[in-house]
Amino acid sequence: MSTTTPIRIRVWNEFVHESRGDAVVLGHYPDGIHAVIAAGLEGSLGDAASVSTATLQDPEHGLTEEVLANTDVLFWWGHIAHDQVSVEVVERVVRHVHAGMGIVVLHSGHYSRVFQRLMGTSCALKWRNDGERELVWTVLPDHPIAQGVPHPIVLDRQEMYGEHFDIPRPDEEVFLSTFAGGEVFRSGVAYHRGRGRVFYFSPGDQEYPVYHHPDIRRVLANAAEWARPTIERTPPTADQHPRDWFLR
Amino acid sequence: MSTTTPIRIRVWNEFVHESRGDAVVLGHYPDGIHAVIAAGLEGSLGDAASVSTATLQDPEHGLTEEVLANTDVLFWWGHIAHDQVSVEVVERVVRHVHAGMGIVVLHSGHYSRVFQRLMGTSCALKWRNDGERELVWTVLPDHPIAQGVPHPIVLDRQEMYGEHFDIPRPDEEVFLSTFAGGEVFRSGVAYHRGRGRVFYFSPGDQEYPVYHHPDIRRVLANAAEWARPTIERTPPTADQHPRDWFLR
Amino acid sequence: MSTTTPIRIRVWNEFVHESRGDAVVLGHYPDGIHAVIAAGLEGSLGDAASVSTATLQDPEHGLTEEVLANTDVLFWWGHIAHDQVSVEVVERVVRHVHAGMGIVVLHSGHYSRVFQRLMGTSCALKWRNDGERELVWTVLPDHPIAQGVPHPIVLDRQEMYGEHFDIPRPDEEVFLSTFAGGEVFRSGVAYHRGRGRVFYFSPGDQEYPVYHHPDIRRVLANAAEWARPTIERTPPTADQHPRDWFLR
Amino acid sequence: MSTTTPIRIRVWNEFVHESRGDAVVLGHYPDGIHAVIAAGLEGSLGDAASVSTATLQDPEHGLTEEVLANTDVLFWWGHIAHDQVSVEVVERVVRHVHAGMGIVVLHSGHYSRVFQRLMGTSCALKWRNDGERELVWTVLPDHPIAQGVPHPIVLDRQEMYGEHFDIPRPDEEVFLSTFAGGEVFRSGVAYHRGRGRVFYFSPGDQEYPVYHHPDIRRVLANAAEWARPTIERTPPTADQHPRDWFLR
Repeated sequence: MSTTTPIRIRVWNEFVHESRGDAVVLGHYPDGIHAVIAAGLEGSLGDAASVSTATLQDPEHGLTEEVLANTDVLFWWGHIAHDQVSVEVVERVVRHVHAGMGIVVLHSGHYSRVFQRLMGTSCALKWRNDGERELVWTVLPDHPIAQGVPHPIVLDRQEMYGEHFDIPRPDEEVFLSTFAGGEVFRSGVAYHRGRGRVFYFSPGDQEYPVYHHPDIRRVLANAAEWARPTIERTPPTADQHPRDWFLR
Repeated sequence: MSTTTPIRIRVWNEFVHESRGDAVVLGHYPDGIHAVIAAGLEGSLGDAASVSTATLQDPEHGLTEEVLANTDVLFWWGHIAHDQVSVEVVERVVRHVHAGMGIVVLHSGHYSRVFQRLMGTSCALKWRNDGERELVWTVLPDHPIAQGVPHPIVLDRQEMYGEHFDIPRPDEEVFLSTFAGGEVFRSGVAYHRGRGRVFYFSPGDQEYPVYHHPDIRRVLANAAEWARPTIERTPPTADQHPRDWFLR
Repeated sequence: MSTTTPIRIRVWNEFVHESRGDAVVLGHYPDGIHAVIAAGLEGSLGDAASVSTATLQDPEHGLTEEVLANTDVLFWWGHIAHDQVSVEVVERVVRHVHAGMGIVVLHSGHYSRVFQRLMGTSCALKWRNDGERELVWTVLPDHPIAQGVPHPIVLDRQEMYGEHFDIPRPDEEVFLSTFAGGEVFRSGVAYHRGRGRVFYFSPGDQEYPVYHHPDIRRVLANAAEWARPTIERTPPTADQHPRDWFLR
Repeated sequence: MSTTTPIRIRVWNEFVHESRGDAVVLGHYPDGIHAVIAAGLEGSLGDAASVSTATLQDPEHGLTEEVLANTDVLFWWGHIAHDQVSVEVVERVVRHVHAGMGIVVLHSGHYSRVFQRLMGTSCALKWRNDGERELVWTVLPDHPIAQGVPHPIVLDRQEMYGEHFDIPRPDEEVFLSTFAGGEVFRSGVAYHRGRGRVFYFSPGDQEYPVYHHPDIRRVLANAAEWARPTIERTPPTADQHPRDWFLR
């Protein structure tokens, strides 16, 4: 619960585009998207974090009970292999979020089972991959995740994600994005689920070097700090309480 | 989508306490809790609703694709058989809510898989069955579900449900309950999930005649009217959109 | 409280641009912006509404105690004369909203004293009058105010209003707008204040024929229906209550 | 903006009950309610805060432009002299909150002009001074203001404040209180207004020694830490922006 010990961050990536040898993706992310995200977090947070990675291909997708118990904040990047993540691991991740682990879901992870399970909605959206300009605007200037980034963040080329985005009404709507084509998207939204915190951040398609962008790296580092557990980590339970239990 | 045609209501009950011959429950609900809830809705709504019922024991729990497609608002009462509801039916109900069907989850249904799936949390709470007085206070006086009931509703004997209740922050917090023992509970909370509406209302333990209470019947009737679909019912989808699609 | 009697709508306009003979404004609104807004509401709502108008120049700005007591929903358009509205009338309008009157604040009315008093914030924003395209996107598809309009509404020429918009977090965020220049704006936001409802809708600069646009007219008619009082209209009061008052 | 420098706290009290020589109040608060609140904050926060006080009787109520510019968090206690606070000082305080100063409004301060101006509602409530037990329950266990206090906090004797409480829907509902008489109250609610943070906390009637209670002192210290400015303090302004201003 201390906020002075390093944040134990685990960056999870399905690592499928890269493993298949997609040249565009490998051009931006030769060692995988997770490696660049992890490097960005290490660069931003330094000694304040200890960052490791895991992928779909690892045993239990690299997300064993022990790994999750020792993770403060899990980053999640997935796209074309959502259905290859085992139900058991999905439920395990959800259970750890309910008990207090933070999670940051990125870009196409909106359609991951983990995110759908935490939201309770379909998480559908409109999209277009046309390499157009995205502007990321801050709506809550005093939110911790919005500190240190310009208003707006300018991304020269990105996939378009547009409304309607089928998510619950956000607890905290931090960022709104607009695209050259005119669409709008709730691109940075925060939720509380059980004792854990959830942040979804949409910039980050595999075909563009978004995770190399210094402002995006700042947002991800801020999100890690915001999502780390601040209270004792323990699963919610339904307990019987006798009369006047609180007087004892 | 018309709001002048009768609301097609389906009241679902696991119907296990009654089938086992629990004398206390049968004293209040000789034909099952669903029968009394349905009678209350019919009494309150008259020609404005057509009410039918279904139970766990029916084929596919009485919730086939066809039944759900012809249900505007589903009421859900379950307690000791949550784990006997098939995953397939749970996912089917959730899918129909996302497409626009309304759902009203009652009392111990907080721990049903359907409600947990729609909330994305554990839905744990504190409880005590001591037959104590519950007062149901209106926090949003202009909410449609709060119309026509006193402030507070007085229930002489009820099971206590207390905070912390592990739910997402409500979109609309309509009722708060207090108990003779001093506990508090967010007892009437509304959410939007996809195109559908969700209302959770906690009064209603099987050991007390709560669903015979005229104020509780008024709340359930109001909830049916509030939760009915008001827009076209269709599943959310992720669609690709070319530039300027909206100008065509 | 009946929702079947006609909605008594009063459209208030400062009527200063027009009185000064501004040719561009008079080109779109020869009898005043209020006349076109009123005609649109009459056209959309027909017998379901009775619409009248008032302006700054009227005695007590046309908003006497008697007028407000007989108004269900007040529309408010002001721009360059906010400081000419008397404090007494501002407080009177706010008091009637607290007691249940609905109010729809339009465009530059964001900086009116009435809106600032109801929000509790400065209501500042970014702006640019460059006659650029505005797209109005629906974020809450099942909200009553969003019914019957396309997603997005296309306005060929409008003044830009951009974030950060200094308002409280909306109770219901209905519309988001984007502009050709890339900015984003929370353009349709709903609040509850006391027993009254408040809707702010930003499209509508005096230099463009926005209030002639059929989709904008539909939004205003929807807003009138949403904002009308649905419960008894009475001022909130602080009352002493003896023990067990609710049992009598 | 640093969160490592001491928080500059100013505790404001109307200081009227005490000045009149009310024996009950002076029994609990011989040097004024503000003195006990200030001592509690100093005891809890130590070197992390520098605490001073001000009262109605001071020139400009002790809240000059210079004082407010050098205050990070203002605590506000008032009861029977709300109408003696000058409009000028009310507007000055509101303006500083909009620019980023934090404010913690206590107990009967719900009816102060400052709080009404920040809320935009009447802030009316039900009440009864019968010296009855209040239980303060945590609804958001991971909220910073709820750290380190039991669930519930037990106050043996307090004035009852009950719903309906005419406030805007809270941004963060931290605490709910119940009373021996059965009423419920949203007793700890947080808002964002402009760049400033507002926390209202209801425990604290002048006739009971509530501000000597260690759990209440912990809440007030937590509130000071939560409400302190975390971003640059500057008034919101409406600015014109040319096209592409963000690219320069």
